[in-house]
Amino acid sequence: MINGHGDDIYGKTIVSNFSSNIYNGFDVSAFDEYLREHISSIHSYPEPDAASLAFLISEKNNISSENICLTNGATEAIYLIAQAFRGRTSSIVIPTFSEYEDACKVNEHKLHFLKYLSDFEGNSDLVWLCNPNNPTGKAIDKLLLIEVIKKFPQVIFVIDQSYEFFTLKETLQIEEAAVYSNVILLHSMTKRYAIPGLRLGYITGCRSIIDKVRKYCMPWSVNQLAIEGGKFLLNHEFSLDISFYLKETELFASELNQINGLSAQKEDTSFFLCRLDKKTGKEMKTYLIDEHGILIRDAANFRGLDEHYFRVATQSIDENNNLIKAIKAWI
Amino acid sequence: MINGHGDDIYGKTIVSNFSSNIYNGFDVSAFDEYLREHISSIHSYPEPDAASLAFLISEKNNISSENICLTNGATEAIYLIAQAFRGRTSSIVIPTFSEYEDACKVNEHKLHFLKYLSDFEGNSDLVWLCNPNNPTGKAIDKLLLIEVIKKFPQVIFVIDQSYEFFTLKETLQIEEAAVYSNVILLHSMTKRYAIPGLRLGYITGCRSIIDKVRKYCMPWSVNQLAIEGGKFLLNHEFSLDISFYLKETELFASELNQINGLSAQKEDTSFFLCRLDKKTGKEMKTYLIDEHGILIRDAANFRGLDEHYFRVATQSIDENNNLIKAIKAWI
Repeated sequence: MINGHGDDIYGKTIVSNFSSNIYNGFDVSAFDEYLREHISSIHSYPEPDAASLAFLISEKNNISSENICLTNGATEAIYLIAQAFRGRTSSIVIPTFSEYEDACKVNEHKLHFLKYLSDFEGNSDLVWLCNPNNPTGKAIDKLLLIEVIKKFPQVIFVIDQSYEFFTLKETLQIEEAAVYSNVILLHSMTKRYAIPGLRLGYITGCRSIIDKVRKYCMPWSVNQLAIEGGKFLLNHEFSLDISFYLKETELFASELNQINGLSAQKEDTSFFLCRLDKKTGKEMKTYLIDEHGILIRDAANFRGLDEHYFRVATQSIDENNNLIKAIKAWI
Repeated sequence: MINGHGDDIYGKTIVSNFSSNIYNGFDVSAFDEYLREHISSIHSYPEPDAASLAFLISEKNNISSENICLTNGATEAIYLIAQAFRGRTSSIVIPTFSEYEDACKVNEHKLHFLKYLSDFEGNSDLVWLCNPNNPTGKAIDKLLLIEVIKKFPQVIFVIDQSYEFFTLKETLQIEEAAVYSNVILLHSMTKRYAIPGLRLGYITGCRSIIDKVRKYCMPWSVNQLAIEGGKFLLNHEFSLDISFYLKETELFASELNQINGLSAQKEDTSFFLCRLDKKTGKEMKTYLIDEHGILIRDAANFRGLDEHYFRVATQSIDENNNLIKAIKAWI
């Protein structure tokens, strides 16, 4: 486990949180109320494998439950996959979410790092990529992705689609990806519905890969309220207008870009990297917390980035404007 | 993950649940209300390592946070320990909770099985035992336990104390056990407070062992409501009168013992094994669910037991009497 992820607000009063790749503007009242009504479900054990939720996901995606494995957030999926392929060689497309590297190290993988998927030459057993990518927000061209998957049928492609609902770029569909014997998709319900505290994710793929990973699963890893919450979410429409949200992101990034000494690198989703010419993300983070109660993600600890980077996820117009004002005052 | 644990009630209407080692008679209203009030905490990430809860536990037990590692139920602790000592030789005192064996197999331990701890001759790297033991309810004599721990300083003793609050027999205290370099204690908040759906456990031990296990921890494995719930529970008194509860257990077992063809093997805690002379636990379980909505634990899949065993945990006097009546009607 590395230190220094986003959302590190423990014990501090935060007015606006740009630090995790999550939109805080959802109307969560119906969801919260549903969980309140189901609190007493914690007094029994969860299903060991969250089978009823896997079944619901299978129905929605026209695949079998056997192609699905529920996990304690997408993070457990990362650790299970790294464990199932222990000691193998992994290539990681960077900069990206640090837990791929950490999980691979814990499980004694040999590691290579790639700047672009297109650089991959087949010299590893697994390729890890995040699509759209954290922290850059960049989505890989789907045709290129499929081409590489087909070119290297002996290589397992672990594709973390935690942010698949926050882009208009085409990503792999669950049913489509399950056809390939060398693809594992990771999904997060945490990001989609702004419930990272509940811990709910799942992997999908062809039966042989899912079976291989399932061997390492422990029982009851998904808590009962996550199971209840997951069912609620699958039965209710996703409330965010992505086109609108991404237009807001564009506006937010372009206004940040007008600040001297700062460049915002907006890509294909709602979060993006910014780079300070001279100052550091750490200095800015400290200033913003202390003076404005605003939390950003210092991105210095992403492999491939340096101390001048920070990451933000677009929030409400007012919050975005407040951040811009605060940064202008500082610079 | 094996199939066939207790509490396998999904989708069926159960009036009384004797199947998990949990007392369902707690007044949980204040706890449930507290969680309802804190539902909105799920919209942020939990602390990656549940540090604030570890700190509270350390204060209550007069040890350092560095001697504690919070886990997603005691089950995650079992899997982490098995992983940290991958490929080693483990002795398991049976019959016992099946996840020790399962976690060891997944992590390629060589396995030995012992009927009694006193039979251990030092021929393994780890010894796994549950104290008081699931499913027998038997607690190990503390002096014997310490004697064996001291006799084999090179052997790691993994002692699952998930049921430590449900016995009057002396078990190892957290502060006392942390002195030994070869002892890991597992603790469950699930059992103590009848919240198995929330998933909350922890391990304690000397710094070097906890550090070794912590290397395999993933971030955010303990969900935010489990952290909130854990804090509430540590700040409130445990409401069950154990002496009274164990007297109830004695009465319950002795009445079961008067049934022809059934022997109840009451030991040191609130759950115990029963053995049917001729019929099977599976047959009885099916009958009790179908005819009375009562759930028991068919204990046939515990290594060392056979199909005639079942396990029950003492519930309220009325529920206990109803079970006795139902079994009498069947036999």
